[in-house]
Amino acid sequence: MAKGHLNFYCWMKTKNTYQKLFSPQSIAIVGASNKKGKIGTIIAENISKLGYKGKTYLINPAYKFLGFKRCYPSLSAVKKEIDVAIICVPAKFVLGVVKEGMQNVKNFVIISAGFSEIGAEGAKREQELIALAKKNNLNILGPNCLGFINPIVNLNASFAAGMPKAGNVAFVSQSGALIVGLLDKAKEEHMGFSNVISIGNQMQVDEADILEYLAEDKETKVIGMYLEGIKDGSRFLKVAKKVSQKKPIVILKAGKTEQAQKAISSHTGALAGSDEIVDVAFKSAGIIRADNLDDFFALLGLISFTDAPKNGQMAVITNAGGAGVLATDAFKNKEIALMEFSQKAKENFAKQLPSESSVHNPIDLLGDAGADRYQNILEMLKKENPGSTICILTPQQQTPVEEIAKIITSVKEKNKMSLAAVFIGGERIKNGVLHLKQNNIPNFSNPESCVRALDQYYRWSIFANEKTDEQKYAANADCKKIVSNIIKNAREQKRGALSFSEAANVMLEYGIDSGSFWIVSADGEKPEIKEFPVVAKIDSDKVLHKSDKQGVILNIKNSGELEEALKALGQNFPGEKVLVQPMQQKQVEIILGIKKDDIFGPVIVYGLGGIYTEIFHMADFLLPPMSEAEIKKQVLSGKIRFLFQGARGQKAYDAEEFSKIIKGIMDFALENSDIDGFDINPLFIYNDGRKASAVDIKIII
Amino acid sequence: MAKGHLNFYCWMKTKNTYQKLFSPQSIAIVGASNKKGKIGTIIAENISKLGYKGKTYLINPAYKFLGFKRCYPSLSAVKKEIDVAIICVPAKFVLGVVKEGMQNVKNFVIISAGFSEIGAEGAKREQELIALAKKNNLNILGPNCLGFINPIVNLNASFAAGMPKAGNVAFVSQSGALIVGLLDKAKEEHMGFSNVISIGNQMQVDEADILEYLAEDKETKVIGMYLEGIKDGSRFLKVAKKVSQKKPIVILKAGKTEQAQKAISSHTGALAGSDEIVDVAFKSAGIIRADNLDDFFALLGLISFTDAPKNGQMAVITNAGGAGVLATDAFKNKEIALMEFSQKAKENFAKQLPSESSVHNPIDLLGDAGADRYQNILEMLKKENPGSTICILTPQQQTPVEEIAKIITSVKEKNKMSLAAVFIGGERIKNGVLHLKQNNIPNFSNPESCVRALDQYYRWSIFANEKTDEQKYAANADCKKIVSNIIKNAREQKRGALSFSEAANVMLEYGIDSGSFWIVSADGEKPEIKEFPVVAKIDSDKVLHKSDKQGVILNIKNSGELEEALKALGQNFPGEKVLVQPMQQKQVEIILGIKKDDIFGPVIVYGLGGIYTEIFHMADFLLPPMSEAEIKKQVLSGKIRFLFQGARGQKAYDAEEFSKIIKGIMDFALENSDIDGFDINPLFIYNDGRKASAVDIKIII
Repeated sequence: MAKGHLNFYCWMKTKNTYQKLFSPQSIAIVGASNKKGKIGTIIAENISKLGYKGKTYLINPAYKFLGFKRCYPSLSAVKKEIDVAIICVPAKFVLGVVKEGMQNVKNFVIISAGFSEIGAEGAKREQELIALAKKNNLNILGPNCLGFINPIVNLNASFAAGMPKAGNVAFVSQSGALIVGLLDKAKEEHMGFSNVISIGNQMQVDEADILEYLAEDKETKVIGMYLEGIKDGSRFLKVAKKVSQKKPIVILKAGKTEQAQKAISSHTGALAGSDEIVDVAFKSAGIIRADNLDDFFALLGLISFTDAPKNGQMAVITNAGGAGVLATDAFKNKEIALMEFSQKAKENFAKQLPSESSVHNPIDLLGDAGADRYQNILEMLKKENPGSTICILTPQQQTPVEEIAKIITSVKEKNKMSLAAVFIGGERIKNGVLHLKQNNIPNFSNPESCVRALDQYYRWSIFANEKTDEQKYAANADCKKIVSNIIKNAREQKRGALSFSEAANVMLEYGIDSGSFWIVSADGEKPEIKEFPVVAKIDSDKVLHKSDKQGVILNIKNSGELEEALKALGQNFPGEKVLVQPMQQKQVEIILGIKKDDIFGPVIVYGLGGIYTEIFHMADFLLPPMSEAEIKKQVLSGKIRFLFQGARGQKAYDAEEFSKIIKGIMDFALENSDIDGFDINPLFIYNDGRKASAVDIKIII
Repeated sequence: MAKGHLNFYCWMKTKNTYQKLFSPQSIAIVGASNKKGKIGTIIAENISKLGYKGKTYLINPAYKFLGFKRCYPSLSAVKKEIDVAIICVPAKFVLGVVKEGMQNVKNFVIISAGFSEIGAEGAKREQELIALAKKNNLNILGPNCLGFINPIVNLNASFAAGMPKAGNVAFVSQSGALIVGLLDKAKEEHMGFSNVISIGNQMQVDEADILEYLAEDKETKVIGMYLEGIKDGSRFLKVAKKVSQKKPIVILKAGKTEQAQKAISSHTGALAGSDEIVDVAFKSAGIIRADNLDDFFALLGLISFTDAPKNGQMAVITNAGGAGVLATDAFKNKEIALMEFSQKAKENFAKQLPSESSVHNPIDLLGDAGADRYQNILEMLKKENPGSTICILTPQQQTPVEEIAKIITSVKEKNKMSLAAVFIGGERIKNGVLHLKQNNIPNFSNPESCVRALDQYYRWSIFANEKTDEQKYAANADCKKIVSNIIKNAREQKRGALSFSEAANVMLEYGIDSGSFWIVSADGEKPEIKEFPVVAKIDSDKVLHKSDKQGVILNIKNSGELEEALKALGQNFPGEKVLVQPMQQKQVEIILGIKKDDIFGPVIVYGLGGIYTEIFHMADFLLPPMSEAEIKKQVLSGKIRFLFQGARGQKAYDAEEFSKIIKGIMDFALENSDIDGFDINPLFIYNDGRKASAVDIKIII
């Protein structure tokens, strides 16, 4: 709950002050210089020479003037409120600068390197700055960043060169070098930006803060992020989920492999998490994940230039049959599909096209198609109401490429279509493609990239249109108390894990049943058991792999055999308690666990148990908190859905019951975030009315 | 065997005559014209105006002269041998032209459309031409194609515009329109071609013929093909496998989806096969499969420009940490890997670089790196002997892009490195990238594409260096006779399938055992069975799903029970035979079958049986013929390898025995290509010394 408040506070803060940080009316450059090649010189020039109309203050005690402009010895010497200060002095002086300036400046951008990325000394500097910022309500971007650019107000407060075109793409990056490369490429693509923000070490202002700001920024239509690590995974997801409802977030997340994770920690000091969990997490927040730099760029271009597909049914027209075939291939395993045209439409197409044309989707206009065929078919497509239309072209000898580009542009504008182009070629298509881009039509170099990007855009639009209820987790105080007492008690006894009976009691609090069982000691009283066969196991946290150590005796058929069994166990494990359970008939074995992810915290893992888990990798991940309904939806679309769908004439297993169990484990995970390990292996589930039963439970404390 | 001879003949033919077809010293254009926009005009101009030095003859009875050049009424009127004739007259006249010309012309290229792609009438035209070609030993490329271009001799015998740069890439395409687009793009990429061939309907000269020709063509280093269908799958694979040992074949194969297959059949009339089998087939022949147009292009560029990685250990240097992280990610699930540098090397790198640099792979030269850092590190890398080196660059303000490009070029040439570049940007990198391409250094727009392409190139080099013995299938005449008698007999009885006992006898011929069994009739003599329990099943091809129809009685424990069972079966299925088998204890169930692929013929499918097959898709495909050793290798690397590796402490199942069984089925499939269906389901296999047993066998005839 405390966390919830904090988020609300951040949200408010965003609206009030990030506007001043990223779209300031006055700006100071601390460490401004005129020495060639110095960062302070480059940034001062970028701010003063690229059209920024706000007030600019140069700060450097070494100068009275820099060029014809007055230079102040310190921030406070300006004696006016300044919206943001850009700090370019060496790391060791930064704290002093902020301390001195915070009377009249609340927003800082620390360009300087020499912080947590260099190790302990730098990390200490960050700690001091964080404390200062917290106490004095400051916003600090960086350190170790490139700065930011706001092309809408012609402000380049970074040491990247030039001023990108103004537009609707916000680009946020943890790598400064990639910003430079992508801005250079963006120029070619006629892509325009609302914001370009280098977040560096994310010491204080982090990706989630910036997402919140950009969600409210009217100039921004799409947010693109290059991330290596994520600072606070669960807050990030919460914010991203909210923002995704308003505008698409496209993320290129690096650090997929163990090796890449090594490269990152030497790079920005961020911790990268397991990539599969990142996938699940992003999907749950409606984030579009880009596969690589080119896809990232293509997605931003597509979303910047055109509307999301209105529905999942796409139309494709082409002057090259082969390219049409490649486009058709590209729809394999996609959410979007090639639409089936109405009979009427096909007849109308046929009237406008030579007899050898194909009037099925993709419509083949043939190699000698001029602009008229593109125009006629595009106009007629309106009635068919495709979600989006893809226009493919290869430059045949007789193809009037520019004319076709112009026709596509005008029909798109007239009919307000969601449209993308795939012009394939080089020199011969250059002018046509230029015309497309200047008129907000995205062009792809191959049909597959186009279909893939449209599919991702469409999936986002589905997410944005679905009402998702925010999952609030309400702790059950009673339950929490009982469970924490059990755990506390075991910890006090210096035990590393709960015994089965303790674990079973904990699980009962979360609605998960282990069936009936008895705890006895070898030399103590015998339970009165009426239903045989039973199994007897040592119930000790010291004996975790019971079967390996002969701590389990199966198939005990009567009380005589039980007595024998208890005696044997008592000899092998003197002083330990014994757990007696009815032998449960195995139907389907499930494994359930909690994995602690470095970024996103506890993650619920569930899948087929037995040999299946390891060999078939039939496991899925879920991120708490989720509602039971949401869990059920995931279970029914996950890897073991076949169990709950009644595959192969089998009666379906109970998805509702299973979702309740997962919900219980989620609650347990959230309320007991300090436990070291958890799994239920196996959980038996049945499709004949019997209740699911957690046959073995391990809770490592 | 007959087939083998045919291939040998084709191989000879290639050497003798395709040279004249694709690199002619004299050429005739039938249907040459001077009317604007006519194909005959465009081709005549392309041949005469782009620098071709051979003899050119214009053929058109309507003219005596075209421009200043003599025009002949017919091919024969030239009265000289002509290496190749390009035919551009309407389809209905083509047969006449070939008939008339074949006295002095043996090679024809039919540009004209109006053949099998338009249906029955056109298909008939092809039949007539094929017959003529066969009788008179002609080579005919097309019909319905763009023609071909041989930039080495400046010959553009197509209606695509211009003359591509001469080089070492041979590009073969089933789509003319894609040729046009890709050649236009190739110009930008400075890619040079040895041959550009449009194969159209592949009426006679097909992809395999052309592969054979290009394998021998000294100008060609890499063969790129865009294919929609494949004419003769098994011949194609055989040829491709041989060619892949000499030079890489890169194929963009369209027609992955059902829908795409529809688009193709309306496009060139070719049949597309199941995509998963195409993957397996290509892999078996060492073919590099491109995912999409961009990858296709990137692969051709890489192979055209640089040598294959010398080993699987790659080095990466970068001036952008983020791009290095993305490169590291890209090595996930690849055959190539980031190499570990020696301690000595790392120390040497450190001496040359600022202290904040990373000397681990990828080596981070930092954003302010000049050409010297690239040069020093590249020179020092020589000693580490990386398989290939990837040079990444983003254009920071201070980055001397062109100078770095020049340094990379010179070090690469000096040290004869396999090297690729990833310069990320737009305008700022343009000149640098131009310099790279002009000097045969491939540049990729993102690290992932680069690593992926290098990985594919490396896998090809492994294939090319492995000695693969050609698989010759030697039929066993005795066995074939016995089996064909059994099948013939069943067919004569108008039965749709073999009975179990027949099928079991067939399988025995191929070394596959069904264990002991007895065939009895309900009212006939009873077998003397000593080992119980047994199972009794109706043995009739009319009752294929026995268990569904109560045709199976399990767990018969003694002769009394057997008598009962036989009586019951006799009542339910009067007159049918009954199969009695010992009850076999199930350990692992395997399913084996033969799938008939439209392109590649019989394909062996094997996988886990039971519910596993459908739910887990644990099935693999193998294309006969293969040696037992090759089969074993595949089994040990396929989806059910875990069985034969002894996973989870289990004793391994017998891979040798299993491979022999697959080999038997392969032989059966090749010798009995006319059967309609085959499966063994289940085959029981054991890891305790018991022999594998085909519990049920279906052979549909």
